[in-house]
Amino acid sequence: MQAEPRLARWLQRVEARLEAALPASDQSPQGLHRAMRHAVLGGGKRLRPLLVYAAGAATGADESLLDAPAAAVELVHAFSLVHDDLPAMDDDDLRRGRPTVHVAFDEATAILAGDALQALAFTVLAEETRAHDGLRVGWLACLAQATGAAGMCGGQALDMDGTGNALALAELERLHALKTGALIRAAVRLGALAGHADAATLAALDDYASALGLAFQIRDDLLDIEASSEQLGKTAGKDAAQAKSTYPALLGVDGARQALRVQADGMVDALGRLAGDTSALLALGRLAVERQH
Amino acid sequence: MQAEPRLARWLQRVEARLEAALPASDQSPQGLHRAMRHAVLGGGKRLRPLLVYAAGAATGADESLLDAPAAAVELVHAFSLVHDDLPAMDDDDLRRGRPTVHVAFDEATAILAGDALQALAFTVLAEETRAHDGLRVGWLACLAQATGAAGMCGGQALDMDGTGNALALAELERLHALKTGALIRAAVRLGALAGHADAATLAALDDYASALGLAFQIRDDLLDIEASSEQLGKTAGKDAAQAKSTYPALLGVDGARQALRVQADGMVDALGRLAGDTSALLALGRLAVERQH
Repeated sequence: MQAEPRLARWLQRVEARLEAALPASDQSPQGLHRAMRHAVLGGGKRLRPLLVYAAGAATGADESLLDAPAAAVELVHAFSLVHDDLPAMDDDDLRRGRPTVHVAFDEATAILAGDALQALAFTVLAEETRAHDGLRVGWLACLAQATGAAGMCGGQALDMDGTGNALALAELERLHALKTGALIRAAVRLGALAGHADAATLAALDDYASALGLAFQIRDDLLDIEASSEQLGKTAGKDAAQAKSTYPALLGVDGARQALRVQADGMVDALGRLAGDTSALLALGRLAVERQH
Repeated sequence: MQAEPRLARWLQRVEARLEAALPASDQSPQGLHRAMRHAVLGGGKRLRPLLVYAAGAATGADESLLDAPAAAVELVHAFSLVHDDLPAMDDDDLRRGRPTVHVAFDEATAILAGDALQALAFTVLAEETRAHDGLRVGWLACLAQATGAAGMCGGQALDMDGTGNALALAELERLHALKTGALIRAAVRLGALAGHADAATLAALDDYASALGLAFQIRDDLLDIEASSEQLGKTAGKDAAQAKSTYPALLGVDGARQALRVQADGMVDALGRLAGDTSALLALGRLAVERQH
């Protein structure tokens, strides 16, 4: 697969940028800093940063411009996981095969670490001197919108409201369009903004990202049933235990697999409307659909 | 007092901007939106927004440019109160004379509302089309820095670490310089950036803001001893109950009053170095020192 060498390079780039952005663990307040580093540097697929680089590659962006938005979107993702895992939310002890932040530290530190990671995401974008002011403003508006009540936080609120209730398919799709979709779409848009993409390109990339976000979530639901906690690095079978609405619960396992194929086809169609090099975006789409954890 | 009519007008301006920025309570997810509005629109002194306008007035900023940073800094302040009041943090039931967000709603909603309010603060700044891109980037960098681990969140982490331990005066000053000082200094700087203040002006304003931040906190500590919960609109006597280090605990009540006077003098000295109209800044300084709640 042609895209593979680039993915490895991009992973190195974003790790280096995250490491540089995070406060040192031997610097006061140490507990907060260690919790922030625990949340961000403990592995993870880095799907969102890779999407930033891949969308940048598809739109001819300067690769060095992409490190800041790649790191920023991952910082927002990491903050959301820390808060979602809290006892008052999903109450999860295990994440990426390690104890969650409130287990490894304490609840207060987990709340503050999440808050500080969100602020750090915006600091990284606002202080990226390689990008001109207009690009930074575009990035910041995009990421802040995707993070807030009209995006990820709104989706998580719908998820909490819906736990224990049977949702209709349209409600479930709206929930995921916000909860995971908003940040995935933002990742793709951040990269494309750095490539000065035109409106038609942005629209095609947004269709790709929307399909990928939904595919990612359907695959997540299927894995929660099919895989073990060891494979996932987080607690398996939680959805059923918490009576969450999922694609397999609504459509059956075969129906969910069919819905996954529809989204996979939608990704390929959307990428077909683009003129640039879409091979990395295609590879990431496959990764979302076929992943085993 | 000459500044008074302006303060009333500025209060109206920031209330209108906050109202416009917050999501509608009849729009889904309603619980999240109502919690965000409960946190922001339930009164409060609006000290930080008033500082934005007053610093703008002192540096000749266009008043219409100040609504966005005034609203943004209050949104960050409101988010921090929601999270600080959580059971895992200060565990407070009463705020501004009303139930705190996690009491009026639930813990999950309070966590998400705080997160969404932070994102909204950055959205308001990034989307302020009246400001040129360079000013927006300056605002965003300033507010994000003041919010994160090097600012307010770091200070709150020091506060949690210090609860139950006796802190030395230098540690207590660092704690407050971050926990309340960082956002107060940011408020003044946001206004001065809109007025295109030069470095000497920014430095004098920062000295004023640092003194005001410390004075505000010393007054807070004194009020926690001297005033009733009814006067404060929040639980009085919490500091002693939680064995928190305070100025009166370290210096005695008379020593804390003396420290307050030193900071009040420091404010006046700093404002003396400014050429512009500092009457509103002076009025707000007096308010911080003399307030009864």
